[in-house]
Amino acid sequence: MMVPPAQRLGVEIWVLEKEDGCPAQQAGARQVVGDWNDPAVAVEFARNMDVVSLDHEFTPLAVLEQVERVTRLAPSFETMSMVADKFVQKRHLQNAGLPMVASQPFSTREELVAIAERLGWPLVVKTRRCGYDGKGTWILAGPEDEIPDLSAGALYAERFFPFKSEIAVMLARTEAGEVLTYPVVETIQKNHVCQSVKYPSGLSAELQKKAAWLAVEAAEAVEAFGVLGVEMFVGPEGEIIVNELAPRPHNSGHYTLDCCITSQFENHVRAVCGFALGSVDTLVEQAVMVNLLGDGYGSGVPRGLHELLREPRAKLHLYGKAARPGRKLGHLTLLGELSAPLLQKGLGLAEKLLFEECDV
Amino acid sequence: MMVPPAQRLGVEIWVLEKEDGCPAQQAGARQVVGDWNDPAVAVEFARNMDVVSLDHEFTPLAVLEQVERVTRLAPSFETMSMVADKFVQKRHLQNAGLPMVASQPFSTREELVAIAERLGWPLVVKTRRCGYDGKGTWILAGPEDEIPDLSAGALYAERFFPFKSEIAVMLARTEAGEVLTYPVVETIQKNHVCQSVKYPSGLSAELQKKAAWLAVEAAEAVEAFGVLGVEMFVGPEGEIIVNELAPRPHNSGHYTLDCCITSQFENHVRAVCGFALGSVDTLVEQAVMVNLLGDGYGSGVPRGLHELLREPRAKLHLYGKAARPGRKLGHLTLLGELSAPLLQKGLGLAEKLLFEECDV
Repeated sequence: MMVPPAQRLGVEIWVLEKEDGCPAQQAGARQVVGDWNDPAVAVEFARNMDVVSLDHEFTPLAVLEQVERVTRLAPSFETMSMVADKFVQKRHLQNAGLPMVASQPFSTREELVAIAERLGWPLVVKTRRCGYDGKGTWILAGPEDEIPDLSAGALYAERFFPFKSEIAVMLARTEAGEVLTYPVVETIQKNHVCQSVKYPSGLSAELQKKAAWLAVEAAEAVEAFGVLGVEMFVGPEGEIIVNELAPRPHNSGHYTLDCCITSQFENHVRAVCGFALGSVDTLVEQAVMVNLLGDGYGSGVPRGLHELLREPRAKLHLYGKAARPGRKLGHLTLLGELSAPLLQKGLGLAEKLLFEECDV
Repeated sequence: MMVPPAQRLGVEIWVLEKEDGCPAQQAGARQVVGDWNDPAVAVEFARNMDVVSLDHEFTPLAVLEQVERVTRLAPSFETMSMVADKFVQKRHLQNAGLPMVASQPFSTREELVAIAERLGWPLVVKTRRCGYDGKGTWILAGPEDEIPDLSAGALYAERFFPFKSEIAVMLARTEAGEVLTYPVVETIQKNHVCQSVKYPSGLSAELQKKAAWLAVEAAEAVEAFGVLGVEMFVGPEGEIIVNELAPRPHNSGHYTLDCCITSQFENHVRAVCGFALGSVDTLVEQAVMVNLLGDGYGSGVPRGLHELLREPRAKLHLYGKAARPGRKLGHLTLLGELSAPLLQKGLGLAEKLLFEECDV
């Protein structure tokens, strides 16, 4: 989704990815087929680029450190060192004065029980690296609950925060000192996976302002450049807690493609290329983004496509990925006036799309 | 510009074009390198497609006739037979009852002088086929003016209409019977090339309604499916005259990329693929589209790019084409509120971009 706006601005995108024909290549990026876990491969790739950016946090830090020696890396190695390990990230944000849930790493069952004695049950257990979409997140109700496999990677535990809602703010920040925040959205999870995103969030103007301010503080705390997503919890008393951040365009900002003058993807390209940011003003009163997950194995084009397209204000975004159960294969954004009950409608439309063994 | 929305909808675009690396391929279309003037090449290409569409009117009719024998062609051979030759097109539209300027073909100087005796000077002389962007259009003030080379291709002459303004309506039409018209825009030409497009047009609601109605009548007269641009003149008394139509997404509809829920390009893909149309509602109060023409030979990325991007509501669209003097290399659309003096601002911004021998 970064490729079309980059091309419009005269920027050529090259992508380093393991399997040929990745979605970015389908969209017009030039692909170098290779494993970004291999420092030699990554450095060779980076040597030919004016700037290297990332669309996930899985690249080993040791690789990023070497990449930054040969070209500009945005987000920087320093930022990635602060955010890639989620426990380290939380400690950084907490040290910067941001409101966070108490958390602590552990590596044995005994340590976990000791944490529970201090923080109380239930506990949320997460992998420190490479978790996404609920992979690497468990909620333990009490000591009798099964503990995740401790050999799978470093873990940390955090106090369960009884949030009223989850919100997110996308933000763009340039090295020239520009910072723009997109509007606050409400994010709705199902099985730890983002199911939908609502704009506007329904928060009071005061809380929206506070959320935007916290997002800027979080970005500054990790010296992030480019686009950054900051996930937050709203507590029962209206308090806002920072959950975690992602130093890149993020699922909770996909609505900006259809709702804002400049999408998160265009602003990420602008920021990492050293251009000025585009306006983040919204063009619609209300929108709902619904993720489209795989139902089975097969085509990335769903059954029900024709019917969906009969909804004139639904914007469909398929990603050109093969279907697997639960895999994010696309999203749809429904645009409407403030009065319309968009969320139920959006969920209903998404439900009728079936990604399985079929071609349309 | 058709490729990104097609991919989002799960539609794969293949393009037949003479030179490898055409803009559509850069945007992610698969290219077959070949000459669409050659019936064997075109038919071989078409055989593998579910539907073939056109983004210009230069393909010989004999080729299109053969293409339609092997797959669905949209616009159809019949439509192309009615519109590709502009004199034939005007006769069709006139026979359908649309208000047109009187016109007549000629092949000798004597015939032209005879036409002038009937229609009066000045006369507009145009090539019947393959004219675009003022190539193939001349205005003759009187018999002393130099007459275009009569060996260059069939010509016709039409009465000069003293228009107050030029307007255009983009329209999308499906075989299932859906018809949607985008809002009327004013088009401003300079040296017979579209310089800029203004939304809204400034016409009264009544005249806008009439223009939209004429556009639908024109589309029906030539049985066009897909997106279609209808260019019209507004006369001194507020009368509207149909000038000509283009059976495809058109320069006067580029503003829809940034201003409408569904762009002309997405709706063209939807219409020719047999999908329902997306909403043509606009998201902004006012917009100005300005074409970006080459200043010299060189890169398709202009000098002045960084400065332009400081205008947060300017949407830049570069096409990835090498610069040549006068060649359309991109456009920019400036979005604003109704009160803003957008046209002068947009022209000023475009003027500061220089396409010449340089790389940014």
